[in-house]
Amino acid sequence: MSAGIDRTRRPFQLEDATGILARTPATLDSLLRGLTVAWLTANEGGDTWSPFDIVGHLIHGEQTDWMPRARIILEHGDTRAFERFDRFAQFDSSAAQTVESRLDEFARLRRRNLEELKSLELTTADLDRAGLHPELGPVTLRQLLATWTAHDLDHVMQISRVLGRQYSDAVGPWRAYLRIISGTQG
Amino acid sequence: MSAGIDRTRRPFQLEDATGILARTPATLDSLLRGLTVAWLTANEGGDTWSPFDIVGHLIHGEQTDWMPRARIILEHGDTRAFERFDRFAQFDSSAAQTVESRLDEFARLRRRNLEELKSLELTTADLDRAGLHPELGPVTLRQLLATWTAHDLDHVMQISRVLGRQYSDAVGPWRAYLRIISGTQG
Repeated sequence: MSAGIDRTRRPFQLEDATGILARTPATLDSLLRGLTVAWLTANEGGDTWSPFDIVGHLIHGEQTDWMPRARIILEHGDTRAFERFDRFAQFDSSAAQTVESRLDEFARLRRRNLEELKSLELTTADLDRAGLHPELGPVTLRQLLATWTAHDLDHVMQISRVLGRQYSDAVGPWRAYLRIISGTQG
Repeated sequence: MSAGIDRTRRPFQLEDATGILARTPATLDSLLRGLTVAWLTANEGGDTWSPFDIVGHLIHGEQTDWMPRARIILEHGDTRAFERFDRFAQFDSSAAQTVESRLDEFARLRRRNLEELKSLELTTADLDRAGLHPELGPVTLRQLLATWTAHDLDHVMQISRVLGRQYSDAVGPWRAYLRIISGTQG
């Protein structure tokens, strides 16, 4: 790796993004399926989310956020703002009530959405199309798809953090070395 | 969930910990196997680690850190300090040079170490046994095993963060909402 290469950023490429998006259901399945309820309902205090809650949030995103917004951009451009996204839909009583059923549903919806995305055969001009976010204002389809990808990774990160911090006391003196617990990066 | 239950912390239980430890190889496999070299060698700038580097670090931990230290505690108690852990061994030229070979090696070593751990049939008295960390001082076997578990999750978190931040610019205005990019928690 030459010192001249910036490895901290990359431009959006559709195949790069779908490579990550296609992996997330299996990653969460490996991490969560079969864990005890105590792990699955762990949180970081107050109104923070548990791994179980987060999988519900990801399901709701597949249903109402990413591909529906992509369709709005392709059909209406920036003449019609996106619907607002409900960040608390996973707490509805109608949401699936076991992590196994949530993981199955997330995998099914993600597969279907990626099939639809592929079928659109998006061109560079399509990716440049502008939509209208109700709060953020003008955004492009390319930015929407990059956000879908980073949002997955954000929640994989959150789940790992929620689980790891369960042992904040149990690790004893090692807490000084564990960035997941101390909250520092490195 | 009653408001009286603290869901932010839990005491160490051997079966809880091995439940997480046994999952990590498959989680990393789902997340990383087959990704492009550009994703696998992404980092956060300077001397920060890439996903490829991190898998190498986890392999070295299986070889020289967790179970070797557990054996020292069981055999020598706190009369013999642990060897220092080399945090940079993954940069040795002898380390495996593809992520696929690293994932395979990590899975093999982890399986072997968990088999050995199980064969020890640790009692509560064993878990209470004290060892001597060269920098942290007295630690118990229980704390060592809790740290092994939290350390896995720390690095799953780190890999997700490194990958997600690749799109820090590509997400455009959404960067304000993505905690993986803004660096805030939630």
